[in-house]
Amino acid sequence: MTYQSISKPKHRQFGKDEQLVDIYRIQSQALLAAHEFLDKEKIVQMMPIMLSPITDPLNHEVYEASIEYLGQRLQLTKSMILHKQIAIAKLDVRGIYIISPNVRLEKGIKTDRHLLEFSQLDIEVRDITGDTFRELMESLMIHIFSCVKRHCSRECEKIGVEIHTPDRPFNVYSSKKLRKQYGRDFEAIISRKESNLFWITDFDREFYDREDPNNRGSYKNYDLYYPEGYGEALSGGERDFEYPVLLRKILERGQDPNDFAPYLELAKAEQLRPSAGGGMGIERLVRFLTKRNHIRETTLFPRVPEEPISL
Amino acid sequence: MTYQSISKPKHRQFGKDEQLVDIYRIQSQALLAAHEFLDKEKIVQMMPIMLSPITDPLNHEVYEASIEYLGQRLQLTKSMILHKQIAIAKLDVRGIYIISPNVRLEKGIKTDRHLLEFSQLDIEVRDITGDTFRELMESLMIHIFSCVKRHCSRECEKIGVEIHTPDRPFNVYSSKKLRKQYGRDFEAIISRKESNLFWITDFDREFYDREDPNNRGSYKNYDLYYPEGYGEALSGGERDFEYPVLLRKILERGQDPNDFAPYLELAKAEQLRPSAGGGMGIERLVRFLTKRNHIRETTLFPRVPEEPISL
Repeated sequence: MTYQSISKPKHRQFGKDEQLVDIYRIQSQALLAAHEFLDKEKIVQMMPIMLSPITDPLNHEVYEASIEYLGQRLQLTKSMILHKQIAIAKLDVRGIYIISPNVRLEKGIKTDRHLLEFSQLDIEVRDITGDTFRELMESLMIHIFSCVKRHCSRECEKIGVEIHTPDRPFNVYSSKKLRKQYGRDFEAIISRKESNLFWITDFDREFYDREDPNNRGSYKNYDLYYPEGYGEALSGGERDFEYPVLLRKILERGQDPNDFAPYLELAKAEQLRPSAGGGMGIERLVRFLTKRNHIRETTLFPRVPEEPISL
Repeated sequence: MTYQSISKPKHRQFGKDEQLVDIYRIQSQALLAAHEFLDKEKIVQMMPIMLSPITDPLNHEVYEASIEYLGQRLQLTKSMILHKQIAIAKLDVRGIYIISPNVRLEKGIKTDRHLLEFSQLDIEVRDITGDTFRELMESLMIHIFSCVKRHCSRECEKIGVEIHTPDRPFNVYSSKKLRKQYGRDFEAIISRKESNLFWITDFDREFYDREDPNNRGSYKNYDLYYPEGYGEALSGGERDFEYPVLLRKILERGQDPNDFAPYLELAKAEQLRPSAGGGMGIERLVRFLTKRNHIRETTLFPRVPEEPISL
């Protein structure tokens, strides 16, 4: 069964801002659906924080974004990963989620799906495997797509797109096999080939994603992808939480443990816990739902790498 | 009828983080209720932006919080006021809302209701009066309180609070009369006296709040307050939108028009429109619902003025 065929816009008379209203309506419905789904799943919402001595190191280099407050250097949030891992350990709750701006001042990355700042729906659930988390995310995506299809038929018609709810099961591929088959551009190639949402597992990347303790060099993480070339939807994994493992992996990646001091102190005191989670880019979700060529078309205030910011 | 009496916590055996779970559950319900209400009102959600050449000047001084990106100076968002006024003018929509982190590096303000960063629910509706916006906000508050009361009875019992839905009509006071009656601390004094949510109108403050063109020195703005000394809940107003008026008011306040250049250009091109709106602090809402002494008790990651940030 095909997942979704790209429909050509039917109403070319609409100006950019006129289409944006429909895009924002679709975004509103998608977010409302996500809130309702997570509430039913007893996953509670936390507010984002934007300034902290620690943040996601990412697995690629970006320009520094930090400020000083009363002699303390504070990083702008690149993602809420470390804070959600801490929260999930401190709170007696099944899971938490946060919708937060992520600031990533990209260096030399200029694609149709990158913004310097974007909003991420970050979810973390305690004491579950990555497989279980992936099932939860499949249900979430199906719920979001169904709600948008049901409540936004007029908006979809106006901007000329048709929503198809994803089919289960989602295909699952290993990054290592795909790399052998397609080379280093495997993500883009397979995203263009597929017609339904699909997973790629087992990436060697940030220190916090769990390495299989019985099979070093193998990772219990995953990315969810959109088909038709739209690329990454969600990135996540089970988490490492034991101090010696985290310290070793930070050093292996050439990073400075001091950059994560308060987080590592909690790990050392055995106050972190097993969890799995992931983060989904809101603008990328909206871009896929509304079939925009460039992610800048999903917002009135796009921050595009290497372009001046006008407003 | 009394609005709400402060109930003493019944379960002193709960530790801080144990109570936080219930506080976060109440926060989740309050936010879900807000999303549902605004969706029914056809007010659409936009994502926040954290970096821009322009931001809210505020009506008090804070430490500078900005970064440089490719030679451009970008302010961290103090509020989304200017962007929501621009959005409401560009989009053919009844209204918009944004939940955004606001960064305000306070200088010398250290109370039980200030954080250096907090989340604000910012709403702006086109072509309506402040009176109509205030009615809408009363309905929103009643909906939020009712939903929390209905869905969080167990959490409220555990932390020892009882939710009472506000009574309509909310009292309305003029800031000028209150100041005559109570002196400069009139806000704190009347917030302690009242037992229901109430409004204070007519403040001389930021340039964007509308000055009555027929009665200069009188302002079509308003703040919503919690009773029992909990202070400000929401701050808003009708907006000025005409270039000569905005320019005059910026200069009267000793501010630099260059700091608002792209916004003023839109005003000069007559691309801004009449609107009214307001911003509600999420942590202050949660503090009132859960009757915490200090706003820091509403979050795992409090950023308290003049305190180092540990996580």
